[in-house]
Amino acid sequence: MKENFLLKTKMAQHLFDDYAKDMPIVDYHCHLNPKDIAEDKAYENITQIWLYGDHYKWRFMRSMGVDEKYITGDASDYERFKAYAKAIGYAAGNPLYHWTQLELKRYFDIDEYLTEESADRIWEKTSEIITSGDFTTRKVIKRSNVKLIGTTDDPIYSLDYHKQIKELADFDTVVVPTFRPDKAVNIDLDGFCEYIKKLSEVGEQEIKSYEDLKDVLSARLDFFCEMGCRASDHAVENMPYLVTNDKEVDKILKTALKGKKVSAEDAEKYKTALLLWLGEEYARRNIVLQIHASALRNNNTRMFEKLGPDTGFDCVADVLEIKKLSGFMNHLEKMGALPKTILYSLNNKDNITMATLMGCFQSDEIPGKIQLGSAWWFLDTKDGMEEQIKCLANEGALATFVGMLTDSRSFLSYPRHEYFRRILCNVVGQWVEDEMFTDNEEILKELIQNICSHNAQRFFM
Amino acid sequence: MKENFLLKTKMAQHLFDDYAKDMPIVDYHCHLNPKDIAEDKAYENITQIWLYGDHYKWRFMRSMGVDEKYITGDASDYERFKAYAKAIGYAAGNPLYHWTQLELKRYFDIDEYLTEESADRIWEKTSEIITSGDFTTRKVIKRSNVKLIGTTDDPIYSLDYHKQIKELADFDTVVVPTFRPDKAVNIDLDGFCEYIKKLSEVGEQEIKSYEDLKDVLSARLDFFCEMGCRASDHAVENMPYLVTNDKEVDKILKTALKGKKVSAEDAEKYKTALLLWLGEEYARRNIVLQIHASALRNNNTRMFEKLGPDTGFDCVADVLEIKKLSGFMNHLEKMGALPKTILYSLNNKDNITMATLMGCFQSDEIPGKIQLGSAWWFLDTKDGMEEQIKCLANEGALATFVGMLTDSRSFLSYPRHEYFRRILCNVVGQWVEDEMFTDNEEILKELIQNICSHNAQRFFM
Amino acid sequence: MKENFLLKTKMAQHLFDDYAKDMPIVDYHCHLNPKDIAEDKAYENITQIWLYGDHYKWRFMRSMGVDEKYITGDASDYERFKAYAKAIGYAAGNPLYHWTQLELKRYFDIDEYLTEESADRIWEKTSEIITSGDFTTRKVIKRSNVKLIGTTDDPIYSLDYHKQIKELADFDTVVVPTFRPDKAVNIDLDGFCEYIKKLSEVGEQEIKSYEDLKDVLSARLDFFCEMGCRASDHAVENMPYLVTNDKEVDKILKTALKGKKVSAEDAEKYKTALLLWLGEEYARRNIVLQIHASALRNNNTRMFEKLGPDTGFDCVADVLEIKKLSGFMNHLEKMGALPKTILYSLNNKDNITMATLMGCFQSDEIPGKIQLGSAWWFLDTKDGMEEQIKCLANEGALATFVGMLTDSRSFLSYPRHEYFRRILCNVVGQWVEDEMFTDNEEILKELIQNICSHNAQRFFM
Repeated sequence: MKENFLLKTKMAQHLFDDYAKDMPIVDYHCHLNPKDIAEDKAYENITQIWLYGDHYKWRFMRSMGVDEKYITGDASDYERFKAYAKAIGYAAGNPLYHWTQLELKRYFDIDEYLTEESADRIWEKTSEIITSGDFTTRKVIKRSNVKLIGTTDDPIYSLDYHKQIKELADFDTVVVPTFRPDKAVNIDLDGFCEYIKKLSEVGEQEIKSYEDLKDVLSARLDFFCEMGCRASDHAVENMPYLVTNDKEVDKILKTALKGKKVSAEDAEKYKTALLLWLGEEYARRNIVLQIHASALRNNNTRMFEKLGPDTGFDCVADVLEIKKLSGFMNHLEKMGALPKTILYSLNNKDNITMATLMGCFQSDEIPGKIQLGSAWWFLDTKDGMEEQIKCLANEGALATFVGMLTDSRSFLSYPRHEYFRRILCNVVGQWVEDEMFTDNEEILKELIQNICSHNAQRFFM
Repeated sequence: MKENFLLKTKMAQHLFDDYAKDMPIVDYHCHLNPKDIAEDKAYENITQIWLYGDHYKWRFMRSMGVDEKYITGDASDYERFKAYAKAIGYAAGNPLYHWTQLELKRYFDIDEYLTEESADRIWEKTSEIITSGDFTTRKVIKRSNVKLIGTTDDPIYSLDYHKQIKELADFDTVVVPTFRPDKAVNIDLDGFCEYIKKLSEVGEQEIKSYEDLKDVLSARLDFFCEMGCRASDHAVENMPYLVTNDKEVDKILKTALKGKKVSAEDAEKYKTALLLWLGEEYARRNIVLQIHASALRNNNTRMFEKLGPDTGFDCVADVLEIKKLSGFMNHLEKMGALPKTILYSLNNKDNITMATLMGCFQSDEIPGKIQLGSAWWFLDTKDGMEEQIKCLANEGALATFVGMLTDSRSFLSYPRHEYFRRILCNVVGQWVEDEMFTDNEEILKELIQNICSHNAQRFFM
Repeated sequence: MKENFLLKTKMAQHLFDDYAKDMPIVDYHCHLNPKDIAEDKAYENITQIWLYGDHYKWRFMRSMGVDEKYITGDASDYERFKAYAKAIGYAAGNPLYHWTQLELKRYFDIDEYLTEESADRIWEKTSEIITSGDFTTRKVIKRSNVKLIGTTDDPIYSLDYHKQIKELADFDTVVVPTFRPDKAVNIDLDGFCEYIKKLSEVGEQEIKSYEDLKDVLSARLDFFCEMGCRASDHAVENMPYLVTNDKEVDKILKTALKGKKVSAEDAEKYKTALLLWLGEEYARRNIVLQIHASALRNNNTRMFEKLGPDTGFDCVADVLEIKKLSGFMNHLEKMGALPKTILYSLNNKDNITMATLMGCFQSDEIPGKIQLGSAWWFLDTKDGMEEQIKCLANEGALATFVGMLTDSRSFLSYPRHEYFRRILCNVVGQWVEDEMFTDNEEILKELIQNICSHNAQRFFM
């Protein structure tokens, strides 16, 4: 991995080296397990870190025809690593290739590409470092210069680990929960009733009506805020927007709580009402609303029944209707209750609709009140990020962008911020070289540092 | 702004300098107010020209978190300019950045970037020139080498200013009206009845039936043609195509004229019928049909109630169905009544469907009878234009392209033609350098000059 | 045409020259007429080869405003060639331009661009070679280093010519049929009953029920397999997926066989059932399933009535629903009956949904069991291919890609493989130069040769 990786101009190198590289990371959206941080978890080898939970890697191995035995089966850690090494050696053009190399370089000072041939050497070198005692979650996070971590949490979580982390004397990274009440919203999915039961227990109030549900969620949200929560998160395939009154919503909820199926229309009404109400609650508490749209999940039933969700069987959906998202945001705006919002779609065709809709709801409360989220998941690639950056720059104000997040389950993913920063500096550096943007140092410094860190700090901290 | 802005190869520079730069501008679609031309309007300062009516700039300022006071509020002209200067200084990657610089260079010979720091110098220099007496609309248009201006006009307009302009002794630019009967088509929007009343008055015939409506519109179209009209224009979100008979259309219209709401289906039937009939009328008169699809307007009700339409609260829609557009064009083609047509979509995903549909209706009447419109509004960016040029080249015949238009409300927007020409010459120049296209001078000259000016002259003049 | 056409780096040139260039062609999907091969057809001039059947060229000529007389009319072969030469001379950015030059170079050793001016020289030179006796279909195919040709065949075809070709002593290229039962699937199109009648005759069993239909198709498929068939092919606008039971399917079929129109819903049910059943049949026989989605055909009725289908009046559709495709594949997967599959869409917006869906159904049976098909038809351009390659690399495993096919009606189209290989080597070469991929020679060689030929050999042979 050469010094100037992805930095094709002198200006790009300058922007990265002098302004971007050392900025603290604000990783406002990820899927780290706070337990692992609280307990300062240690590992035995790189397979445990890389391959126990990373469905990106699993998917790629399956695409290369690797036997499931080496992916989620009973092969040994060493065998699994070897299988990954062999596969990744051929991953031309795949972001995993770069992430793999960046992580090997930054955490293990390894400069050679991972291939079947180099696998043994790399296995030994990484094992040595991992088992040295100096390679625990918290130590790695510290070394990675992370200012804030936003985990992703269900309203029923106790947040005990967040409490423990808060009380640590020697750990400065702020670790806060994110309120993600998808299971309370998805009235049409299996397990809804069971979930509401659990929510009742946690909330110490039996949920028998829509009012009850709002009471419990409101109390949970208050508790999350006490624990430092600054953001919520919602996954939607398409944005629901079908307005009705609370009385009908109450009826729909009661139908579902009896274990009956609700119609698609009723489900949309319920979701709309609950999301609008939540939007107001977020606005009142200055909580960021994140909307992750356009994932189509669990496409392979055979594998779902074996492995469950989040195991590499999701894809990009194509059903987002910008008119519904517009209606939803306008509804809140009319009530003066539109929170700071980040719009993410997994489908790059939605970049332009979202980026232009976003421009209809900006405000002087904060620059970039409505954000086009960083290129995410299947779009978290060099091409995807360049497209998102250019779309945002063309249609909105890149200068206000809150920038990158890992969205990751692994605490070795921080080099994805480096990857993003290199790409950002390369794009902006090229514009400067082409005299498409000023070479004024003050403006460039402010622009780059804001996007790499300051904007997110202002937005979330 | 360096000489070779956007021209990355020697060939690109040659194409621009020797073939593109000096071609007369045919600005066949814009939103200039003919009154300003007829009266040869003068201004006091650059804020009046730039910021009184340009919702592109307003949007960008809102995205940067600027207080509405400085956008459409009661701040002074100087304060508003300063606010814009501060915001635009950070507009990396936004086309406004380049338009701003090109306009400062071409009309005020200013070479420095507009920023908060340079704002006062630029305010003074521009004010001096603007108030010199030599900076009126007509003088600027003349200096900009504009051969034709196509304004955008409602059938109820008197076109008095067009008449006045026609009679000017010292003004050679042809200024013609464009027939845009959207308000007669949009039976489902508020104000339809009031509009039909006004149309009745202007047409001196009370519109009580579909026949009446066609009579009046036909007479207005004749009048527009007398006044030099060469094109029509229609804004649609999705293309309507649901065919019925005139009797039912008549019934639907009568329902609406009683002030009753018509169903979505009935509205589509009415629109289809009226657009098909208008298509025939255009074909008979050799009037170009322009279709602007995929804008979703007035998304922010709170701001709409304050500021009205066209104030920066629109976005890109995603509902265009190519099958309906195909049905519509095929319908006219079968009747031998498909006029010259330009298809524009605000959503770049429609480039490929439109560009390939277009190829199904070409004819030997004129090369490029059906056109893929220039990248427009939110797509009027370097990236958007390159994408449109390449899509057109891949799927159709770039050589027949009628090229750029400003679509602008400002008479300082002609450098957008320069921006387009630089991008065009850069793309073609790169092809030549890469030996992907001939370096034959005759062919290159013809190609570039046709796209920059001659094709549009043949198409519209 | 210079040596390094499209190869912008030293590494790209090395990859092409040393690894890609000489790999045998596996043209697994084309529309060659096996009769022309069996009879070793000769031609009189280039118009007969180029312009008698190529609707790509026809479309382009129409886009340039050429009179239909010179396209499908009664102009002489020479006049038609001249008209094409004149038009193509201006085809900046169009893939036809490059195909034309590559074919002139590779088969006639002509280095100058085809223009109106060069037309006569090129007419003479090509005529001389074509009439030399050395320019028959089989001789050209041999010279083109083609290992396998997969034609496209209706289940009612006798495959007599395939038989003849198989028995040729001096012709090593394997020519196999592809099973394309679209006419048996499209119950909602005109001519369905007539087709079923013909199928009954060929199958020597009257088709009166769904069971009968399956019996006949199964027998035909067995026959195709005897004749070397390795793949099927299905054209769909949107993917049908609406599951019902065989009893209802039988009823729907019987309705249609009475000459009655079936509803859109019933048509979808019938198609779903038949395609699922065929999927199983393919899986059992290790036959590849190819799905070509998103073509909208015969948009111009006036011309359709004159010229029939496949004459240049099709366009890109926008209705593919990834959820239906997911449901379809999942259905087969649950039954353990998902065959090797290639997903093609004519709309590049579907690249990302298909490429990510694909990743949900990979398997260790063969690397890249599910494929994102090569950029096709309107996307068979440099831009389209780069986009497909990058999407596949980002979302899946480029290393497993079965690569290019001509999809062509002309036996002079093999240079499209060269065009693809140059583009592939250029993309990969750029990655290597940018240190985004290893420069390990073994890995690069394997990667390039697999994509150019070996993967397709393993997949199809």
